[in-house]
Amino acid sequence: MPAHALFREEDIRFDVDVDPVIAALEKILPDEGLVVHEAGRRAYECDGLAAYKQLPLLVAIPETVEQIQGVLKCCHEAGVPVVTRGSGTSLSGGSLPHPQGLLLALGKFNKIIEIDAERRIARVQPGVRNLAITEAAAPHGLYYAPDPSSQIACSIGGNVGENAGGVHCLKYGLTVNNVLAVKVLTMEGELTTIGSEALDSPGLDLLALMHGSEGMLGVVVEVTLKLLPNPLTKQVLMASFNDVEQGGHAVAAIIARGIIPAGLEMMDGAAIQAAEDFVKAGYDTAAAAILICELDGSDAEVADQQKAVEACLRDHGASRIQVAQDDNERARFWAGRKAAFPAVGRISPDYYCMDGTIPRKQLAYVLKRISEISATHNLETVNVFHAGDGNLHPLILFDGNQPGQLEAAEAVGSAILQLCVEVGGTVTGEHGVGLEKINEMCVQFATAEINQFHAIKAAFDERGLLNPGKAIPTLNRCAEFGRLHVHNGELPHPELERL
Amino acid sequence: MPAHALFREEDIRFDVDVDPVIAALEKILPDEGLVVHEAGRRAYECDGLAAYKQLPLLVAIPETVEQIQGVLKCCHEAGVPVVTRGSGTSLSGGSLPHPQGLLLALGKFNKIIEIDAERRIARVQPGVRNLAITEAAAPHGLYYAPDPSSQIACSIGGNVGENAGGVHCLKYGLTVNNVLAVKVLTMEGELTTIGSEALDSPGLDLLALMHGSEGMLGVVVEVTLKLLPNPLTKQVLMASFNDVEQGGHAVAAIIARGIIPAGLEMMDGAAIQAAEDFVKAGYDTAAAAILICELDGSDAEVADQQKAVEACLRDHGASRIQVAQDDNERARFWAGRKAAFPAVGRISPDYYCMDGTIPRKQLAYVLKRISEISATHNLETVNVFHAGDGNLHPLILFDGNQPGQLEAAEAVGSAILQLCVEVGGTVTGEHGVGLEKINEMCVQFATAEINQFHAIKAAFDERGLLNPGKAIPTLNRCAEFGRLHVHNGELPHPELERL
Repeated sequence: MPAHALFREEDIRFDVDVDPVIAALEKILPDEGLVVHEAGRRAYECDGLAAYKQLPLLVAIPETVEQIQGVLKCCHEAGVPVVTRGSGTSLSGGSLPHPQGLLLALGKFNKIIEIDAERRIARVQPGVRNLAITEAAAPHGLYYAPDPSSQIACSIGGNVGENAGGVHCLKYGLTVNNVLAVKVLTMEGELTTIGSEALDSPGLDLLALMHGSEGMLGVVVEVTLKLLPNPLTKQVLMASFNDVEQGGHAVAAIIARGIIPAGLEMMDGAAIQAAEDFVKAGYDTAAAAILICELDGSDAEVADQQKAVEACLRDHGASRIQVAQDDNERARFWAGRKAAFPAVGRISPDYYCMDGTIPRKQLAYVLKRISEISATHNLETVNVFHAGDGNLHPLILFDGNQPGQLEAAEAVGSAILQLCVEVGGTVTGEHGVGLEKINEMCVQFATAEINQFHAIKAAFDERGLLNPGKAIPTLNRCAEFGRLHVHNGELPHPELERL
Repeated sequence: MPAHALFREEDIRFDVDVDPVIAALEKILPDEGLVVHEAGRRAYECDGLAAYKQLPLLVAIPETVEQIQGVLKCCHEAGVPVVTRGSGTSLSGGSLPHPQGLLLALGKFNKIIEIDAERRIARVQPGVRNLAITEAAAPHGLYYAPDPSSQIACSIGGNVGENAGGVHCLKYGLTVNNVLAVKVLTMEGELTTIGSEALDSPGLDLLALMHGSEGMLGVVVEVTLKLLPNPLTKQVLMASFNDVEQGGHAVAAIIARGIIPAGLEMMDGAAIQAAEDFVKAGYDTAAAAILICELDGSDAEVADQQKAVEACLRDHGASRIQVAQDDNERARFWAGRKAAFPAVGRISPDYYCMDGTIPRKQLAYVLKRISEISATHNLETVNVFHAGDGNLHPLILFDGNQPGQLEAAEAVGSAILQLCVEVGGTVTGEHGVGLEKINEMCVQFATAEINQFHAIKAAFDERGLLNPGKAIPTLNRCAEFGRLHVHNGELPHPELERL
């Protein structure tokens, strides 16, 4: 188990007398709704960040909102930490259990309560899978836009918790831009309604605050989502570049023309090769980078944008430009990108997928530095990139069975995140902080901001029982990690001198 | 001065020993930077909600961030409330002074620090006028999208505080969707940086929280904004309807086709007549409602959308459809709508502009009820409507010199806001809560949500010194107002029974 980012002493300070808690929970939960024996709890010991494992003290599997409410009230009274889990696909350890805590598994909340085509909304329980919403909306010609690559499995409650993105978030926004309202239980078990279907909600913007809060402010028990009409037309272009920097310039040029593609993805040479070997998508394996650009809208709009995008690609030295001629070819262009992660899984026993953002213009520099950092640790890194919004996913290749390689991969990952902050980016684009990147939060934020996060957390959860030890580092942790004083590429607060 | 919504006893609980505060502030502020004499303070006694007047205890006019910081530290120590003011155009009394407090006037922070055309951002001080940003960006072919009707005067700091909208927010979003980062001073005078130019910011979403927080969480001292490229083409259509309901259906049909117009505005018969009498825009004064629809984008995109919009208008019984033939005609179509408020000012000694949101399909019912409510109080109401996003602006006509008419107008306004909540809308679309709608917040929110707002407020401002008495009602106030238990058209939390 990696040591660098696990729970610290202050995160496991809870003193739980488990027997009375079990007795109380048994009265609240249905038969088989409370898992006490170790073999049963073992099934929940990790999430999508599989290198981290932690047995929970107990697992609760409620079936009604009243039962969740009862569980929370009981845990609040007894001082038991609570970690909420949907499908358990978090890549940052967001739903990794707490050793002294109850794991609240919401898998049974998988009901789509309502699809209203006229209002273009869906109202769903938190355990509903992301893709299931689009499937249910499809007969009405509607879909739910955010599409994280785990969309077949990940649940909407977790999407809210991590503010999930996906290939199409460049044009259609993150989860926060596609959710209208949530019903949330506080740690005390009180039900609150946050947001509405109206333009703007009066009062403080608790809806945005809830997004990306990683289960630390409350338990989401219902989500009302925006549905969008299916675009009339889609088109996909694929361009090859002899160097990554030119590709980066092409991306900047497309955005600068005011075109917001539905997707704009880049892969480096190693990623192209791995994907091509795996799915035979006809990718240009001679290229240093390929760019996949999806356009959507009305026929005229797409035709117009296609002309402009082709010009940008040509102007910035694309060595080859392919335009999909039909649905099959469109699917083929995407196939390699969509299979990039499993493709990398074929060429390396293990890989560690990082997630950071950078200003687009820093792309070439950052890729060069990533390659240097990896070489220092005798590892290789393959890069896929949500190019339009500057969200980089380096996949660090390693072999967990070779002593020291996991630690080396983690060191490379941490150095990459710090690099992202140095060039003016952030330590997470869409995977969240969880336990994985909690140390790097000390690099991203100054003490004042971290204190503000803690104060808000306490305003929702005074006793600190919801997902303790995640997302917001303690100042002790930062002191030990040896925080860097860098914020968005600047020294802290030079503006006081400048203004 | 209207009595129904003014400061309550608990809002004016501060015990300020003013002489030592004056002595301390004189050392911090420049010459003429501290206004103590009554005539000088008088200039700040109201904002855009002109019916409410309140002299502040002191006025501070700092010129540097260090000076603001010094003022805040001093007030924090001495327990002096602070109300921040930009241009003072708030329509809800957001910057109305506190009788025991310091008014912090940021008019001198009017510098555009940076326009970066490549990154498509502007970095500005909080006192910069909204329109000045677009003017400064224009040479680069860029503009700042949110355009509240006060854009010539209102300042960007206030836009953040109220999460300002405007005619174009249907397509381009509210202020929160167009701001990337803010620098904020806490009440203790600590400088924090919130947000970044990256896709998503790790940690809790303090940036969204700051928007619409009405100066209650901190003092914004710098704003980094997104700039957009000017659209290549614009087109404006104007349609007449013989009844409002048909117009509402046409709006729903346009949105349902997946078209997001740049603007989609409706005016009722009384508003049409007032506007036509004032600016002779050639409006159809025989119509019960007109709909003005602006489309923007590339030539092909606009042509495409125009065809679809015309079909929607025809299908829903438009009695007349006009398409602007050139720039002059486009400007003429807009002229009446843009002059609607002053036009109404010509036909009535006073008017009270309300701001609520409703589900679009409730439009006809809500207009009928507004007319009934007004008649009960012997008043008339004229309606303009951001139809695309359901944001209604009823203008209640009254004569402040006639005894009882102001109170009657306020009663009508309050009843309209409660009506908005009853049909599933909200008490504010874009003007904020301030003091004006603070009672109606008790209708919008249940106790649990109001308590959560207070807890977050306390997490930023423990002593409650920033803009006390605004935006978030005390539970005492709600008890006295006689809160209704209605949330989004539902009784509170029926879902507990339903789920």
